[in-house]
Amino acid sequence: MPDEFGLIQRLCQTIPSHGSHHNNATVDLGPGDDAALLSVPADQQLVVCTDTLNADIHFFADANPADIAYKALAVNLSDLAAMGATPQWVTLNLSLPATTVKPSDWVDQFAKGFSELVLQHQVGLIGGDLCTGPLTITVTAIGLVPKGSAVQRQGALPGDAIYVSGALGAASAALQLIKNKQAVANELLQHLLRPMPRVELGQALRPVVSSMIDISDGLLADLNHLLKASAVSATINTALLPVSQALLAEPNYDWLWPATGGDDYELCFTVHQQNRHFLDDISAKTSVPLTCIGEISHGAGLTCLDPQGQLIKPETMGWKHF
Amino acid sequence: MPDEFGLIQRLCQTIPSHGSHHNNATVDLGPGDDAALLSVPADQQLVVCTDTLNADIHFFADANPADIAYKALAVNLSDLAAMGATPQWVTLNLSLPATTVKPSDWVDQFAKGFSELVLQHQVGLIGGDLCTGPLTITVTAIGLVPKGSAVQRQGALPGDAIYVSGALGAASAALQLIKNKQAVANELLQHLLRPMPRVELGQALRPVVSSMIDISDGLLADLNHLLKASAVSATINTALLPVSQALLAEPNYDWLWPATGGDDYELCFTVHQQNRHFLDDISAKTSVPLTCIGEISHGAGLTCLDPQGQLIKPETMGWKHF
Repeated sequence: MPDEFGLIQRLCQTIPSHGSHHNNATVDLGPGDDAALLSVPADQQLVVCTDTLNADIHFFADANPADIAYKALAVNLSDLAAMGATPQWVTLNLSLPATTVKPSDWVDQFAKGFSELVLQHQVGLIGGDLCTGPLTITVTAIGLVPKGSAVQRQGALPGDAIYVSGALGAASAALQLIKNKQAVANELLQHLLRPMPRVELGQALRPVVSSMIDISDGLLADLNHLLKASAVSATINTALLPVSQALLAEPNYDWLWPATGGDDYELCFTVHQQNRHFLDDISAKTSVPLTCIGEISHGAGLTCLDPQGQLIKPETMGWKHF
Repeated sequence: MPDEFGLIQRLCQTIPSHGSHHNNATVDLGPGDDAALLSVPADQQLVVCTDTLNADIHFFADANPADIAYKALAVNLSDLAAMGATPQWVTLNLSLPATTVKPSDWVDQFAKGFSELVLQHQVGLIGGDLCTGPLTITVTAIGLVPKGSAVQRQGALPGDAIYVSGALGAASAALQLIKNKQAVANELLQHLLRPMPRVELGQALRPVVSSMIDISDGLLADLNHLLKASAVSATINTALLPVSQALLAEPNYDWLWPATGGDDYELCFTVHQQNRHFLDDISAKTSVPLTCIGEISHGAGLTCLDPQGQLIKPETMGWKHF
């Protein structure tokens, strides 16, 4: 069995470390030393986020290692996308149980899934840590934005329109169906296993939107975060939420899936009325549907109509860890 | 019981996010959004490292949360120190079992230990993640160095003297004694629980040394990493290894503790002969003893004499995870 350093070598041989050189950012020293060395262009700001995925909390422990790796990276790239940033570098912390039967096979598959997304977004794996422990993965992602241009959760103004990208609810539907031991359409399953971070869309929206957040905790919960940060209120109509045909075709369809399910990794953003005309072009160029679901108002709180037009209380909805 | 966001709030209220403004680096947006925003001065390089600590692998699950937090940060600052970098920002990923009896007390104590070291080194906590899962902590640390000045593992040349800082072996001695259910002198225990990252020393050594590494896997293992990276060989004499009085006084003293025990977080570095005269001053200014333990030669491999002057084989020594 290869030791820790052998496994790290396998990871590093498969996953590229250099990243793209857009923005003139460079990896001056990659993995293998006590730390990595990076050069950041003077006109850019660093954008840093990090997320941990734990076995049997965020994914099934016996899932395909390639899918686990893909998602661990995707959820971080989604956070960068929500700032309008260009992903540049990532670090990877992987704890693997000492009882893993074939750790090198596991690590090879993991590296393959990680690489797919690394190559797609031309990020570089600049460092990390591999050790024995419970199966858990932490990715820290570093992106860049032109100084002063990042989009935040704060910035929404009364009168702004509220949009979401893509379609909602497929991931949480898939999870629910799996837990219920029911059949899951492959399209729904793919949303759960391989969410597509909206990186290109986030960058395209950057000059146009007033605030943005990614939908990881569920639309209502995340929109509430945005409203609090912006000190505004909103009214949305859940009948307007974009839902895929595959999800609507699900016999057990539940409207709470798109509203509160979470794990969607779509972008929720606000846009001043005079900027709405930019969105058609952005949607066409990025091939991502953008749907208006409500409007920002003065005050605080989220007023939300269910598909029957009844008021619902969103405070208690969304993913809670404790 | 507070929810995830309540616990995050407790952490963020205790641990400062701004960091120092040395080097004109600034936190433009701290924790609370999808990502943090940072400005890096044009004349500096980023230095990035990350390390995970898992319960019952790297620390005892029932240890004082303040000690766990301190060590999770210390081991990362030690990696930055080994590059000669100034620590600037950190992210923190904390997974806490859902069965934790009083999560807010646990988190408060954790935040206290983390803050001690954050304040000491004026780093800012810029983001992170808190979720349910097995007790595991990942810290990612970002430091700065003037461009082109970072010290690496490569760079040692034949004729260079090999030094280590401080005294070795106390942490692994404490761990061994605890495992053997023997009494542990408090001084030894403190080295295990609260290793002191050699941040100031690393920066002072930066212009003077030819290569450097921190001793986390054990002196012999880490020196071997340095030799491989520099493509040189070395001869050291373990009789020269610096060992504290407290450790020598230990009835069960084992010379392997300082040689291979690990968890020391001292710096091992090489220095050209003509630069050795700088070291007295640096040692005096930083109040850290610096001890010459051997010399770099051409070729490959580590020749190591045990305290009786016998050759030992270091290949199999040092911490192995798998």
